[in-house]
Amino acid sequence: MSRRAAVLMSILAAAPSAAGELAPTVRAEAERLRDAAASGTGALALARSLALEVGPRLAGSAGDRRAVEWGLRTLRSLGFANVRAEPVVVPHWDRGEAAAEILVPHPQPLVIAALGGSVPTGERAVEAPVVQANSLDGLAELPSAAVAGRIVFLNGRMERTRDGTGYGRTVEQRTRGAIEAAKKGAVAVLIRSVGTDQNRLPHTGTVRYEEGVTRIPAAALAAPDADLLEERLRGAAPVRLRLRLTPRQLPDAQSANVVGEVPGGERREEIVLLGCHLDSWDLGHGALDDAAGCAIVIEAGRRLLALPRPSRRTVRIVLFANEEFGLSGARAYAAAHAAELPRHMIAAEADLGTDRVWQISSRVAPAALPAFAEIAALLAPLGVSAGDNQANGGADFVPLRPARVPVAGLQHDASRYFDYHHTANDTADKLDAAGLDQSVAAYLAFAFAAANTTADFRPAPEWPPATP
Amino acid sequence: MSRRAAVLMSILAAAPSAAGELAPTVRAEAERLRDAAASGTGALALARSLALEVGPRLAGSAGDRRAVEWGLRTLRSLGFANVRAEPVVVPHWDRGEAAAEILVPHPQPLVIAALGGSVPTGERAVEAPVVQANSLDGLAELPSAAVAGRIVFLNGRMERTRDGTGYGRTVEQRTRGAIEAAKKGAVAVLIRSVGTDQNRLPHTGTVRYEEGVTRIPAAALAAPDADLLEERLRGAAPVRLRLRLTPRQLPDAQSANVVGEVPGGERREEIVLLGCHLDSWDLGHGALDDAAGCAIVIEAGRRLLALPRPSRRTVRIVLFANEEFGLSGARAYAAAHAAELPRHMIAAEADLGTDRVWQISSRVAPAALPAFAEIAALLAPLGVSAGDNQANGGADFVPLRPARVPVAGLQHDASRYFDYHHTANDTADKLDAAGLDQSVAAYLAFAFAAANTTADFRPAPEWPPATP
Repeated sequence: MSRRAAVLMSILAAAPSAAGELAPTVRAEAERLRDAAASGTGALALARSLALEVGPRLAGSAGDRRAVEWGLRTLRSLGFANVRAEPVVVPHWDRGEAAAEILVPHPQPLVIAALGGSVPTGERAVEAPVVQANSLDGLAELPSAAVAGRIVFLNGRMERTRDGTGYGRTVEQRTRGAIEAAKKGAVAVLIRSVGTDQNRLPHTGTVRYEEGVTRIPAAALAAPDADLLEERLRGAAPVRLRLRLTPRQLPDAQSANVVGEVPGGERREEIVLLGCHLDSWDLGHGALDDAAGCAIVIEAGRRLLALPRPSRRTVRIVLFANEEFGLSGARAYAAAHAAELPRHMIAAEADLGTDRVWQISSRVAPAALPAFAEIAALLAPLGVSAGDNQANGGADFVPLRPARVPVAGLQHDASRYFDYHHTANDTADKLDAAGLDQSVAAYLAFAFAAANTTADFRPAPEWPPATP
Repeated sequence: MSRRAAVLMSILAAAPSAAGELAPTVRAEAERLRDAAASGTGALALARSLALEVGPRLAGSAGDRRAVEWGLRTLRSLGFANVRAEPVVVPHWDRGEAAAEILVPHPQPLVIAALGGSVPTGERAVEAPVVQANSLDGLAELPSAAVAGRIVFLNGRMERTRDGTGYGRTVEQRTRGAIEAAKKGAVAVLIRSVGTDQNRLPHTGTVRYEEGVTRIPAAALAAPDADLLEERLRGAAPVRLRLRLTPRQLPDAQSANVVGEVPGGERREEIVLLGCHLDSWDLGHGALDDAAGCAIVIEAGRRLLALPRPSRRTVRIVLFANEEFGLSGARAYAAAHAAELPRHMIAAEADLGTDRVWQISSRVAPAALPAFAEIAALLAPLGVSAGDNQANGGADFVPLRPARVPVAGLQHDASRYFDYHHTANDTADKLDAAGLDQSVAAYLAFAFAAANTTADFRPAPEWPPATP
């Protein structure tokens, strides 16, 4: 018996009476909403508006402020209720300039991008020999004598997968590479971009530092540049690099979570939360990441607003501030709404591009699984299969975990997402209109059903401890 | 009747006795060479060596000098005869920095690259409103009052085609855009990159200026940035841009054509010329353009060197200097070898990447067409069809036209070539090993047969006047 089937059977045994929470009229309306959205929505126009009119909007930047204005203007003009900017203090990092070159044995410039949060090299560049490892485990095996005084090149390759799990398996070389390299005395770290493309466009993303460990400069090489460095290191001759990064950590800045609501009826105090993040990395236009997600949840909300009768529960749209650079918006939301979190019935975040949703998973109270299965079944005609009850939820829901807010995971096909993720190439032309419409249909059917079912999804099973 | 069939019939009628110039032993040996190459060659390693060990090699740069050393070292180590560097004086342009941004109505940075040879804006950037035209014809229709004092945005889109003709139909917006815009009083010109991709990587290439017309700064926008500017210009609000370019024209520099030979036998004074160009644009590694072409002709020559008996004619490999930035190498070759050009039997240049050759065309004396058809037929098992007698030959053969040197055109599939052409993305990972082997097989069979046929291809029909 499969693990999923076993879980399902134990649930059916434990809660045989939980099915049938979705009234036939609710089901019919959800199907109507779903099919109307699948045949065409305004999501592409919304995503293009944020990507093309606001563009890059890293936390703390002028673009970030314009994004908040865009969010307020957009939600108000579409008729959302209780539209507001909830203040969030965000860090403000500016990438400055980045340059690297192989000095010997064959001089060549390299295309790099500083990792978000990297310390600078100073105007006087770092010049050092290079030592390669293909993962953090590989680095751990190197003796400190082989690393001290060198630039560590972390050359792990991300695997292309539909579920995007290749990212999770590789991203630690970006997030923890500087810590582990510095512990062995490295002077800087360069990583192969965590991505699946072969373009000369590096993938940025955050780097972490650890109290008590020297903070060393960190940057990502574009894939062809990682190939080049790898080729050089295959030779017998020592390889020396020059690296220059001039990022600055500026004073914290004011940003905001932008919130709007589709008010509920008899259970209006209960909240179905649809999230996305309003900020983006600075290199691209943040089209796939995450203008797309904001467009999906705003468009779904807009269609709920147009209904003649309110749903039982309130559907709240939250455009989170600063997801990319430390989840400040998510933490501010969890703090500001602490009293209200027990009334958050379920939450779903759209943050994986525009390709078709292929699976819906959950993290809900086991007793509510049959009710969730009724909702998941509504998405089947969109080509969406039912997943397990171990959904992660979006990054912005991590701070909601202690309150055990249930989550749904609507998984977009991530096969091509990491070609563009965190690069300059994340631009409006990469948005897929048909995938956006299908996604809106999926989120809309989910949200409408979750707001109208009599089922209670709370509390989510306890989360495993977060990986550092 | 098709045009090609009609041409062929008239030729067969005019020269019924010209067939049968290829001895059966020559044909058999050509087939053997072709099939051996098709099953695997060293061309990928050669192309990777030039792309990865030398890298960018714009005329006059340090990379250019290293490329000449690479050429000499490579041809000598492979056993070519008469290996030499023939001096060529080349211009030396350095691109400096390039930045552009939309100022109003929505501030956004744009990704651009200066066009090769562009004059600088000066440290004080150009700031001006933008006017769009979709072609030089469209620009011609605009009244000067609509252009004067503005930045002209030439937004023509290149069509993706197997034969690469989309390039020829669009490239004038790059080469002549600055002239035509300046004639109407524009202060700068920005073009949509002449390419077929949607990456955030602009395509460089030369811009021309004209005596008596103000030289204005010229740059190419990456396709997504051209999309963004186009979107902004659709709105009612005026669009203002800031453009800053700091290229410098440095003193002329010394470079060289690198030449090596496979000496012939009874007709050793007759030359079959295989060409490529050694220089590249500065943004990428010049892998497809044109390490690939050099690898193809060097590998073909290396296989001829390994034969036990010399061919009738000499096969000469020429790695031309500075094709990209004004054909200096080609002109120097034509001048230095003027006395010898009448003995150039036929010439073919490999300069269109690594994808499979699908057609072989010619420009030979009509009487020699049946003999050329014999050679073309040798390539049929590689999937190469026979084209017409109007081959252009490579760019490096333009200076040979007055001497009416016959040319063969081995056309690579150009469908994806212009995704990478003249961008930072022209890196070794884009080289296709199977396509390279097939290309070597085609060039090798062609060269061996041309060096051993008794046919005389001279003189080529007169060329139509070159477009400016």
